[in-house]
Amino acid sequence: MRLSAVLFLVSTLVGGSVTIKTLVFPSATSTSYVEMVPLKPLNLQAFTLCMRVATELSGEREVILFAYRTQDFDELNVWRELDGRLSFYMSGDGVFFNVPQLGALQTHLCVTWNTASGAATLFLDGRKSLTKIYRKNQWVRPGGKVIIGQDPDNYVGDFDANQSLVGEIGDISMWDSVLSQSDIQDLFSGKRVARGNVFDWETAQLKIHGEVEVVDVEL
Amino acid sequence: MRLSAVLFLVSTLVGGSVTIKTLVFPSATSTSYVEMVPLKPLNLQAFTLCMRVATELSGEREVILFAYRTQDFDELNVWRELDGRLSFYMSGDGVFFNVPQLGALQTHLCVTWNTASGAATLFLDGRKSLTKIYRKNQWVRPGGKVIIGQDPDNYVGDFDANQSLVGEIGDISMWDSVLSQSDIQDLFSGKRVARGNVFDWETAQLKIHGEVEVVDVEL
Amino acid sequence: MRLSAVLFLVSTLVGGSVTIKTLVFPSATSTSYVEMVPLKPLNLQAFTLCMRVATELSGEREVILFAYRTQDFDELNVWRELDGRLSFYMSGDGVFFNVPQLGALQTHLCVTWNTASGAATLFLDGRKSLTKIYRKNQWVRPGGKVIIGQDPDNYVGDFDANQSLVGEIGDISMWDSVLSQSDIQDLFSGKRVARGNVFDWETAQLKIHGEVEVVDVEL
Repeated sequence: MRLSAVLFLVSTLVGGSVTIKTLVFPSATSTSYVEMVPLKPLNLQAFTLCMRVATELSGEREVILFAYRTQDFDELNVWRELDGRLSFYMSGDGVFFNVPQLGALQTHLCVTWNTASGAATLFLDGRKSLTKIYRKNQWVRPGGKVIIGQDPDNYVGDFDANQSLVGEIGDISMWDSVLSQSDIQDLFSGKRVARGNVFDWETAQLKIHGEVEVVDVEL
Repeated sequence: MRLSAVLFLVSTLVGGSVTIKTLVFPSATSTSYVEMVPLKPLNLQAFTLCMRVATELSGEREVILFAYRTQDFDELNVWRELDGRLSFYMSGDGVFFNVPQLGALQTHLCVTWNTASGAATLFLDGRKSLTKIYRKNQWVRPGGKVIIGQDPDNYVGDFDANQSLVGEIGDISMWDSVLSQSDIQDLFSGKRVARGNVFDWETAQLKIHGEVEVVDVEL
Repeated sequence: MRLSAVLFLVSTLVGGSVTIKTLVFPSATSTSYVEMVPLKPLNLQAFTLCMRVATELSGEREVILFAYRTQDFDELNVWRELDGRLSFYMSGDGVFFNVPQLGALQTHLCVTWNTASGAATLFLDGRKSLTKIYRKNQWVRPGGKVIIGQDPDNYVGDFDANQSLVGEIGDISMWDSVLSQSDIQDLFSGKRVARGNVFDWETAQLKIHGEVEVVDVEL
């Protein structure tokens, strides 16, 4: 594992459209990953986490979509489960959503949660899931690292190729609040109004390790 | 069954978006339900009934979506049938629609009917179904109670957990007329112009019984 | 094989809508095909190729969707594979996309590629697939012919009925650059702003051979 690049993803406005980076993981590895440096510590009573993701992995295959781990805990992991359900975990058992499966066509995925009500929801391509009640009064705690492409079973390490992401992921942004449904629909349709205050993809600092292609796409 | 809360769901305008309540039924029970108090008696020659609903219940499972019962009759029930079809019943046999199944992603559902033509239709996420002719010259009669979450086989009682709603439901509004297709598409897309005159979700009085979570969502 | 017609497909604006031609291949043959004359040589470091296609062919059946062959090489072929995947080939092994299958409902299909990054993607009805890295630093070379309906295993010849297109295809346009996602979504939804500079369907010169029906459709 070497640090192959430190990138600042600066957006470019070309004739009204915006160019962003997207990450391509061509094959299953236990070595390729991207660390995202947050704009502020992940000390969160609420969050919205969005991304665009596409993968041909299907059948009985776990896929890690987002991993935030401190020294001892998986503080916030987002998964495609063995059976295709989507889920997220905040140190302990997860919350599961039986939604249409990810595939080779890009899906705009958001998860939202807040501590006060425990309301946990997914959005797929702007469509809101049912609400589940999860981890009321818990927090997401600061001091860890966010990894894309691998699930760290230790602090940034102990990766398993059978859980790695193969495919494409990008436009990963995060807020310390629950965005409205119309904001999320705007994000889905490419209106770039709300900018993440925890992660903002267009300015995010990425540390690329291993075999990860960084490709420009024009939205 | 205890009366755990009487809520007035008052909407709040925050920066142009609207906050509404939504009801989460976390598990199958024969005890949890919500009574909705109408703005006027359900003495109806025509109606439009809309809601946003999401459920992971699937396979051979009936799900009650709306129940209006007087002392002796199911005056208007809306169902997800055993085979996934949607239907409604006005005291007697129902009318059935073979449409895409409800799922974990929220569906905006409306049913419309009027006595003069008997035209009965569904709208799913703004898309209109074929029209069926049903109960021409019949009325929906007043004097009953509207229950969400359970199907009362007696007047507010005799519930069956195997028919209960598990999931999320909200934005339940009703009119004593048939709304236009464009009105219903506006409702689907969150434009809150037409306000129900039988039920208006934003001001509806709800009587919560049992295990029902009331969560704020911002449209 | 005879030259049955040389057509210039001129669009007509009728009350704001546009009428275009579409090609119907009624049955499997090894003789029916359409040659498209490009606006400039296919000397390409990047491309976007779009079409509208519908076919009831399914199961284990290859279907050629676009064939550009020079004397000795298949420079750019687009296929529906035996297993239903979509793919394209630039002289040698192809790149494959496991996406929803083509069917009797029309699909708006685009493929994009550029030499600098090797980024290869599909768009189905405006939805972008994952990106694959393919043939970085290769070019599409000029001097060949573009054939619709058949796969030439020699220079315009040696056709196989089991690979022929049966169904409908039209609105075939090509650019020597990678269009933005929003441009492709505009094309999908019928906004005819971006006009192909390699092929522009509305003015394309077609040489029809064999049993091919040319039908007007209003977008």
